[in-house]
Amino acid sequence: MKDIKNLKLAYIGGGSKQWARIFMNDLALDEDMCGTIYLYDIDNEAAKLNKEIGNKIASHKDCKSKWKYEVSKTIDEALMGADFVIISILPGTFKEMHSDVHEPEKYGIYQPVGDTTGPGGVLRAMRTVPIYEYFAKKIKEICPESYVINFTNPMAICVKTLYDVFPEIKAFGCCHEVFNTQDFLCAVLKETLNIEVKRREIYTNVIGINHFTWIDKATYKDINIMSLLDEFLDRYYESGYSVKGDVDAYKTNPFAYSNRVKMDLYKRYGALGAAGDRHLVEFLNNNWYLKDKKKIEEWKFNLTSVDFRINRMEQRIKDTIELANGTKEIELKQSSEEAVDLMKAILGLSTMVSNVNLPNVGQIKDLPKGAIVETNALFTHNQIVPLYAGKLNDEAHNLVLRNLINQEGLYEAIKARDLNKIFNIFVNQPLCSTLTIKDAKELFKSMVFNTQKYLGDYYSIFSYYNQ
Amino acid sequence: MKDIKNLKLAYIGGGSKQWARIFMNDLALDEDMCGTIYLYDIDNEAAKLNKEIGNKIASHKDCKSKWKYEVSKTIDEALMGADFVIISILPGTFKEMHSDVHEPEKYGIYQPVGDTTGPGGVLRAMRTVPIYEYFAKKIKEICPESYVINFTNPMAICVKTLYDVFPEIKAFGCCHEVFNTQDFLCAVLKETLNIEVKRREIYTNVIGINHFTWIDKATYKDINIMSLLDEFLDRYYESGYSVKGDVDAYKTNPFAYSNRVKMDLYKRYGALGAAGDRHLVEFLNNNWYLKDKKKIEEWKFNLTSVDFRINRMEQRIKDTIELANGTKEIELKQSSEEAVDLMKAILGLSTMVSNVNLPNVGQIKDLPKGAIVETNALFTHNQIVPLYAGKLNDEAHNLVLRNLINQEGLYEAIKARDLNKIFNIFVNQPLCSTLTIKDAKELFKSMVFNTQKYLGDYYSIFSYYNQ
Amino acid sequence: MKDIKNLKLAYIGGGSKQWARIFMNDLALDEDMCGTIYLYDIDNEAAKLNKEIGNKIASHKDCKSKWKYEVSKTIDEALMGADFVIISILPGTFKEMHSDVHEPEKYGIYQPVGDTTGPGGVLRAMRTVPIYEYFAKKIKEICPESYVINFTNPMAICVKTLYDVFPEIKAFGCCHEVFNTQDFLCAVLKETLNIEVKRREIYTNVIGINHFTWIDKATYKDINIMSLLDEFLDRYYESGYSVKGDVDAYKTNPFAYSNRVKMDLYKRYGALGAAGDRHLVEFLNNNWYLKDKKKIEEWKFNLTSVDFRINRMEQRIKDTIELANGTKEIELKQSSEEAVDLMKAILGLSTMVSNVNLPNVGQIKDLPKGAIVETNALFTHNQIVPLYAGKLNDEAHNLVLRNLINQEGLYEAIKARDLNKIFNIFVNQPLCSTLTIKDAKELFKSMVFNTQKYLGDYYSIFSYYNQ
Amino acid sequence: MKDIKNLKLAYIGGGSKQWARIFMNDLALDEDMCGTIYLYDIDNEAAKLNKEIGNKIASHKDCKSKWKYEVSKTIDEALMGADFVIISILPGTFKEMHSDVHEPEKYGIYQPVGDTTGPGGVLRAMRTVPIYEYFAKKIKEICPESYVINFTNPMAICVKTLYDVFPEIKAFGCCHEVFNTQDFLCAVLKETLNIEVKRREIYTNVIGINHFTWIDKATYKDINIMSLLDEFLDRYYESGYSVKGDVDAYKTNPFAYSNRVKMDLYKRYGALGAAGDRHLVEFLNNNWYLKDKKKIEEWKFNLTSVDFRINRMEQRIKDTIELANGTKEIELKQSSEEAVDLMKAILGLSTMVSNVNLPNVGQIKDLPKGAIVETNALFTHNQIVPLYAGKLNDEAHNLVLRNLINQEGLYEAIKARDLNKIFNIFVNQPLCSTLTIKDAKELFKSMVFNTQKYLGDYYSIFSYYNQ
Repeated sequence: MKDIKNLKLAYIGGGSKQWARIFMNDLALDEDMCGTIYLYDIDNEAAKLNKEIGNKIASHKDCKSKWKYEVSKTIDEALMGADFVIISILPGTFKEMHSDVHEPEKYGIYQPVGDTTGPGGVLRAMRTVPIYEYFAKKIKEICPESYVINFTNPMAICVKTLYDVFPEIKAFGCCHEVFNTQDFLCAVLKETLNIEVKRREIYTNVIGINHFTWIDKATYKDINIMSLLDEFLDRYYESGYSVKGDVDAYKTNPFAYSNRVKMDLYKRYGALGAAGDRHLVEFLNNNWYLKDKKKIEEWKFNLTSVDFRINRMEQRIKDTIELANGTKEIELKQSSEEAVDLMKAILGLSTMVSNVNLPNVGQIKDLPKGAIVETNALFTHNQIVPLYAGKLNDEAHNLVLRNLINQEGLYEAIKARDLNKIFNIFVNQPLCSTLTIKDAKELFKSMVFNTQKYLGDYYSIFSYYNQ
Repeated sequence: MKDIKNLKLAYIGGGSKQWARIFMNDLALDEDMCGTIYLYDIDNEAAKLNKEIGNKIASHKDCKSKWKYEVSKTIDEALMGADFVIISILPGTFKEMHSDVHEPEKYGIYQPVGDTTGPGGVLRAMRTVPIYEYFAKKIKEICPESYVINFTNPMAICVKTLYDVFPEIKAFGCCHEVFNTQDFLCAVLKETLNIEVKRREIYTNVIGINHFTWIDKATYKDINIMSLLDEFLDRYYESGYSVKGDVDAYKTNPFAYSNRVKMDLYKRYGALGAAGDRHLVEFLNNNWYLKDKKKIEEWKFNLTSVDFRINRMEQRIKDTIELANGTKEIELKQSSEEAVDLMKAILGLSTMVSNVNLPNVGQIKDLPKGAIVETNALFTHNQIVPLYAGKLNDEAHNLVLRNLINQEGLYEAIKARDLNKIFNIFVNQPLCSTLTIKDAKELFKSMVFNTQKYLGDYYSIFSYYNQ
Repeated sequence: MKDIKNLKLAYIGGGSKQWARIFMNDLALDEDMCGTIYLYDIDNEAAKLNKEIGNKIASHKDCKSKWKYEVSKTIDEALMGADFVIISILPGTFKEMHSDVHEPEKYGIYQPVGDTTGPGGVLRAMRTVPIYEYFAKKIKEICPESYVINFTNPMAICVKTLYDVFPEIKAFGCCHEVFNTQDFLCAVLKETLNIEVKRREIYTNVIGINHFTWIDKATYKDINIMSLLDEFLDRYYESGYSVKGDVDAYKTNPFAYSNRVKMDLYKRYGALGAAGDRHLVEFLNNNWYLKDKKKIEEWKFNLTSVDFRINRMEQRIKDTIELANGTKEIELKQSSEEAVDLMKAILGLSTMVSNVNLPNVGQIKDLPKGAIVETNALFTHNQIVPLYAGKLNDEAHNLVLRNLINQEGLYEAIKARDLNKIFNIFVNQPLCSTLTIKDAKELFKSMVFNTQKYLGDYYSIFSYYNQ
Repeated sequence: MKDIKNLKLAYIGGGSKQWARIFMNDLALDEDMCGTIYLYDIDNEAAKLNKEIGNKIASHKDCKSKWKYEVSKTIDEALMGADFVIISILPGTFKEMHSDVHEPEKYGIYQPVGDTTGPGGVLRAMRTVPIYEYFAKKIKEICPESYVINFTNPMAICVKTLYDVFPEIKAFGCCHEVFNTQDFLCAVLKETLNIEVKRREIYTNVIGINHFTWIDKATYKDINIMSLLDEFLDRYYESGYSVKGDVDAYKTNPFAYSNRVKMDLYKRYGALGAAGDRHLVEFLNNNWYLKDKKKIEEWKFNLTSVDFRINRMEQRIKDTIELANGTKEIELKQSSEEAVDLMKAILGLSTMVSNVNLPNVGQIKDLPKGAIVETNALFTHNQIVPLYAGKLNDEAHNLVLRNLINQEGLYEAIKARDLNKIFNIFVNQPLCSTLTIKDAKELFKSMVFNTQKYLGDYYSIFSYYNQ
């Protein structure tokens, strides 16, 4: 039996300035588990800074457990003997992300995020799959019994790669987008029936694919929360509604949204999109909610420019250095993430239901087996057991299916390193609905060209261009 | 045992000026079967004219069998005791077809045919399903053991309706589009290997849905005809190729096409679209091959305007009257249609393989069971047995799947008479890819308005407009 | 929202001398729920006695909640407005059960229980299905939203009938056999690693059909309990092992068993039969563990004669009267049953995992959809969600599959009231493996004859005999 | 394109004294194909004799085509460049077959054939699979494009091995048992309606597994032949019926049968077993039709003792030598086998439907994909396309399913060379229904012991015995 006071964690992408920090905090504020975390990153310096910060967090007065941070020079060293492997990386740099997100704008395609689907998602997947093939091989070789928790996007493609390369892997993908929709449903309960509960006090049936997840059943005791939505929409459909209070936050905050898209989808399809509006719109024809900036403004969400991300990162780097050298003080704060709770459930300390990304074994009816889907699963005693989610109503199901076949087809095309096949998927993206084949080809070629630094080892780019 | 010299056929839509005539000819030139044909049509006068013509054909000197034509005043009378029921109707009039085909042009959507899919297909289906529900009920009640052969479009929706209302029905849908592609493959064999054969001498694996059917295997003896396509495309991809000789016929003949789309699809997807180019393009994003008239010209096919159809019909009516009253002489000519041959095979006079539209029992892998698909089947001794067609390569399969889920979803939405659901399918049509939701709604409403005469009995149009 | 202090429960079979009493106790000792229980029984007097006892329990000093007991004269009255419907009936009397269990002994077929499968199970099912068809219709008509909890055997056939007649029913079947196997696994943990835990502290994957359920994964924290079985078997395979201590109890107690069959199945099939040995053997060829009384003695379990049951019932009736009239004092005692906990979870008071009988929606891979299977499900907030159980190893799976196709086939044959079809299933029972067709027919006819009082309304017995 | 006047055939088991001879005859009497046949056999002398005979046949005055016979010393030489590979071998010798067939008699298990299923089938499969694994590897390596026709039993296990080792193989298994049942149905047509036709003039739906195949639909023109069976059974159920005339032939001819079992199965299950009665009974509980010799006599079929086979073989060897050295004259005679016709259809000379053994791709509904089943397929132009056979009625389906899961499980267990798993399948055979586990183990061990010469290289027999 494992000694939960002496666990070993490997953190791939351990130089992360955001996720790693949140995770460190949550670990510190949990009192059950202790152990050592091995940070591995291709940016070794960043890992070193995080080690400093990690150890400072671990020795903070409010820390409830004992954790030690180490930097691993090689991935092998990090993985050796790991009980859990956390993966959270950026495939490429902001330069590539800039091309992913903004190059398509030249053809009238706006992407609020651009990391999961649409043209940006395709290119990012092309960079990510080869890296994850490598991770999967390493895990198979070094720590096949470890649990692997993925946070990287494109989520589904990452999890698919892990399972395709190493089918026995104990991997799953975590995403908090659903949590926000659960908060939204709690708000519905509050606004209509004046019942105030937390999201973990209701039960929602989660069904779909990552970032295009849906909720079709939501209950609190015997109350059908879905049935309250019509009344809620009567009041908030036009104005929008923000769980955090400020419905106009989207005007200044590039991550904010007012749930107008979510409510519109409910109106049209009778099921609730369970991700941020910024994500949901990327799975639909581009002329639906992203035709132009005016339309986007009307739907009350925002595009996240990569320049904004760059600026934010610069600030974060500054913070990181200050936190590492002690100039800036550490404050422990629990996040709303669930990774630490899920780990505890896996260790047998609790039983817990949460939404995760896993291969479909039938948890969603009438979707292909083996495709990566997001639904609820039970976490407990060394087991992760999918809960049966059923099937969305036909029309919403078909929207998901269309994107799922793109998602799975994209993985197969990338696995084959076949640029023609990848292009067939690219042009089939809902976000590319308005493109001519000629424009699509031009755009695809530019995006490949812009990011070739991370593609050249894997794809025959040169011969493709000379086709 | 049936007396094949005394069969009874019911022809629903028996006033038809085209299909009925072809069928009468083919019957006359077959020497095995004889009997009586009961023509039923809501246009009783048209049926009467066809009766005249039919009986003239039957008494033509070249006629090899004995057939008698009668007009049935009621559908019940026509169906009573029928061995075979032929259905070939026009749901609505050219006025409605005009709206189906041309109204979307106001929004930049061009449809070469507009009777199967796309906005026109959706509206036509809305008119057709209620009629076919009625036919199915009548057949179930009056002649449940009859074989029912459908020629009406939208083919798949018609066949779906028949089976959904009366699951034990012995119905199938016949379409000659695949034949032309088989002729095209014979041309490939001729042009590359100088082997000259007829289409029935090769074997093709037919797989897909009506008018978006594909061929992924084609053999003549042990020759893989598909492997000859690259060489053929080297020569004809740019210029186009017409089986009938004149590659520029499309300039004047609104039904002509040069197979450039078919060849392009093969280039992109590695399988051959097995229908006329005019049909194939309607299942793809409108900006791919139908962006504007210039594009259409480049791909060397033509749009068939409804005005053209109206003019042609006027000529046909004239001909009909002249044929009926003997002013114009009857010429017997065998068509390339297979309905008569299929009937003979069902009667046990031969064994024959042909492509037909039937519910999927597994003949296409990984498509939903019960959906109407088009593949080969064996016809023999009172049995129609689907042949296993397998699955197209992933990317072509996905194109079919996207359209199939629209097709099946459309049927369900119409069955429910739910205009909101129908609109969800409408806006999800590949031909509507460039529409905003607002424009799509506007267009849908106009098309419903234009054709309300044939919809009002079934749908709550008024309340939909006041939503 | 429901008022959990004012629930309405319908108890069909409310005159029960065993289950009803246990349930009353468990309700009394729970502090969250209150309400009224309507007892309905064809034996109205028995229901009245239970009402007396129920109200005495409810006014007992240790009772933690307020419950009121009423007798319903009609099933309609009991069901009207019910939040939960409990069904626990005896189809027929001990006279019929006597034939079920003992008539086959004349042909060398011994049945320790005889209420689920084998010849006795078939006959009992024949009496039960018509009754459950009636229940299902009543529930559909009167309280379609109620949760229905079944305790009657043959469990799977009962649940199947409910769902087949009323597919939207919220029914599930509860059985405690798995609990005992979980206790057994806790004993394994104790005996091998000296870790002492309760059954709810481990997680087991439950998979199979009622009374022929299996456990193929069992974990406590990260310990694989299954991997401890070899060591455990080394010590206890020969001697047997009883969770309750006395391994020889089977010599006097007709319900006792020593788990030798369970351990033998594990040895042979690598998975653990998760029901009492008395049940497990009934799903296997009769010459395996039930060849004769000597064999049964060797495997250290016992046959439960119906005479024993009759004697026990007489004692219970005596007790009942004494409890009802106050001669005998009531003692409140919590059972190990989970029905009350499951009800609370459904009401949203907790989240809970338990094994239940439900139609297969995919929770067991490669078993027919719609067949009744037993696996884990999550109970929470008005939802019962099956957990994915996967598939047993091929050989154990095949044993289950063989019995499942009998189970489902039996239901269909009974539904059709077709005695020939029922016989085909009868002779296909593993317990009938040694019968000739002639003997099987003779036995079947006798058993039908013996129990005709409860069959005559439904089956054409007379014409069957004169075949 | 292949030169059909210069084909290359490889005949594995080319020393065969029966099948090879029939095949040589059929080839000689066909006028379309010519070429060379390479005979390979581990008994090289036998192959040489067949070469002599083959060449004599080829130069016979009635021979219509040119064939040359050669002996290959190695399998590689035979396979190199082969257009078709014929496999027809005896795995082991009559000594092993003697154990397969007669050892179980000591335990009351009678097997009329003992080469497909039951205890004999299991042991024979154990010898055969390793040989076929070798064949499959060789074919994959040397002639992956060849068509492979299997005649060896256990048919399904042989075909399974070929496809499992080399999934792209173009293999199929041919069996004539169905032909006899088709003749039987022609007799039904003759006896009831006085219509005289040949078996190829009717259409039958073939469905099941080899030697336990069924026919559930049979039509001649629009006549449902199945509907005539009741009348036919009224006359012949008691007496039996032989297509060849002498219903009592079974008394002296160990291969004869009177179709009483077939008719009884139809009576009980509503579908017609489509193999010889001797085969059908082996898939059913041994007490049904094989309880003892008296029972067998009543059902009017016979057991084929291996001594009889040995005697027959001695006569055949004598004949072979005489034919080879010219003492005995060659007579050309067309058989009723279809192998030559199927080859011609594959070469594109005709289109033909016949029953074959192939992996299930869905041709039988609700049976596992990949399992080897026997149904109709279309043979034409380098393609073998399964025809959809649907599903037998539930009860007959379940009989097939039970045997199919044994069949597939047996293959997996042999593939794993796991004697414990093989025993689990052994004891699960319907023919072993009456065995205790102890007796079954004893019997299995004896049979393994008896045939160890052919098993020792593959299985850990020694360690199994010392378990």
